[in-house]
Amino acid sequence: MTPASLRGDPLPKTAGIILIGNEILSGKVTDANAAYLCREFRTLGVDVRRITVIPDEVELIGKEVSEFARDYDYVFTSGGVGPTHDDVTMEGIARGLGVPVVRHPELVARLRALYQEHLNEARLRMAEVPEGAELLASDLRFPAVMIRNIYVLPGIPEIFREKFEAIKERFRSVPFHLKSIYVRIGEGVLAQHLNEMLQRFPRVQCGSYPKLSHPEYKVRVTLESQDPLYLEQAFADLMARLSPGDVVKIE
Amino acid sequence: MTPASLRGDPLPKTAGIILIGNEILSGKVTDANAAYLCREFRTLGVDVRRITVIPDEVELIGKEVSEFARDYDYVFTSGGVGPTHDDVTMEGIARGLGVPVVRHPELVARLRALYQEHLNEARLRMAEVPEGAELLASDLRFPAVMIRNIYVLPGIPEIFREKFEAIKERFRSVPFHLKSIYVRIGEGVLAQHLNEMLQRFPRVQCGSYPKLSHPEYKVRVTLESQDPLYLEQAFADLMARLSPGDVVKIE
Repeated sequence: MTPASLRGDPLPKTAGIILIGNEILSGKVTDANAAYLCREFRTLGVDVRRITVIPDEVELIGKEVSEFARDYDYVFTSGGVGPTHDDVTMEGIARGLGVPVVRHPELVARLRALYQEHLNEARLRMAEVPEGAELLASDLRFPAVMIRNIYVLPGIPEIFREKFEAIKERFRSVPFHLKSIYVRIGEGVLAQHLNEMLQRFPRVQCGSYPKLSHPEYKVRVTLESQDPLYLEQAFADLMARLSPGDVVKIE
Repeated sequence: MTPASLRGDPLPKTAGIILIGNEILSGKVTDANAAYLCREFRTLGVDVRRITVIPDEVELIGKEVSEFARDYDYVFTSGGVGPTHDDVTMEGIARGLGVPVVRHPELVARLRALYQEHLNEARLRMAEVPEGAELLASDLRFPAVMIRNIYVLPGIPEIFREKFEAIKERFRSVPFHLKSIYVRIGEGVLAQHLNEMLQRFPRVQCGSYPKLSHPEYKVRVTLESQDPLYLEQAFADLMARLSPGDVVKIE
């Protein structure tokens, strides 16, 4: 694929998502945060380039975070923040960035207000951040933590979404436009039509997703672009190559 | 965490999972294969160490696969095999391993029997494999492809599972045993109990998973080990630290 930078397109911002969680790798929990974030970023016009799931281990987290922070415009982590022994995300990020872990005075004050005389050492761990971290969304009960281009969110889906909702406007860019064509022909016949369309419209993102034993269609074809006119042209080109009877529905 | 190799435990085999799919990164499809594979491997006694989701790009696939093949005992890929332009997994793996893509004679014969006079160039792409690939589960309509320690499965969940079911016994090892304790105390209080238990039983895998606004419990604690006696001892130790009223249920 020709990189977008050589095609003259507006270059979308990129994101990488790191899920920190033994519970996902051991099959006890199915993650919902990555799929949510991918949908949100698509709507905002941000290109998610990679998702990775790694265990709750300081060294691994540090290595992964520092690579992502170099490779993508935005990095999101999910999970591993909290008061227990397996909450090592902050320590991992600090290690990866080569900075110490410090107690953030504003977070300590929040915890003190929240727990009052029940504030203990375990709960104070929730005030620990990599040195240099900033707080976002301060109107939430507990703010979101950002350091450089890394956004550190908790794994609990309700809180993950609450925090993302509070900061999402800072990521808004040129949205992606999408057309889906559901066809009753198989990929073996469809492939040539797609290849011919892509020769004329190489900048459209085209996906082909077969569905087994669906009563109505065999393949969902998706066309996407940040340029709505270009998308319409590629769509019309492909439609002209298909027989009217091939198409089940368009979305 | 002390690596298992220094603890004198039997060292479990490790696995890495690579999902190849723009459709996941762009939020159009929620993957089900990784969660399925994590559950299966846990039952089989294999330790999944990493999941990654990357786009349908040859260079990226090659780099990822060769790193995984070096780092883990078993590598599974999901997606990107088929007749269309976005099916570049085989090419990516070949690139990563430094071997050419070849048409496998047995796969060509299968396709010829399946499609007869409708066999075309697009469908013949499904016979392409990295040189040196082996076929497994030959009694399936279409076999599974393995090269070195890499198992190449299609993204369609029904076929992914069918192929894995057909080959899973080759991965069976010492299973992990799991105990879950659901408690009505929060992590801020629980943390100290867990830390004390872990000082006595450092080899047990312990997770702490808070649940928001559940009517019955606040946190699910999980203890795991491949050694059932050690697990029972760690479990009894933790139970003795909790007040009887703290525990909602045990699984």
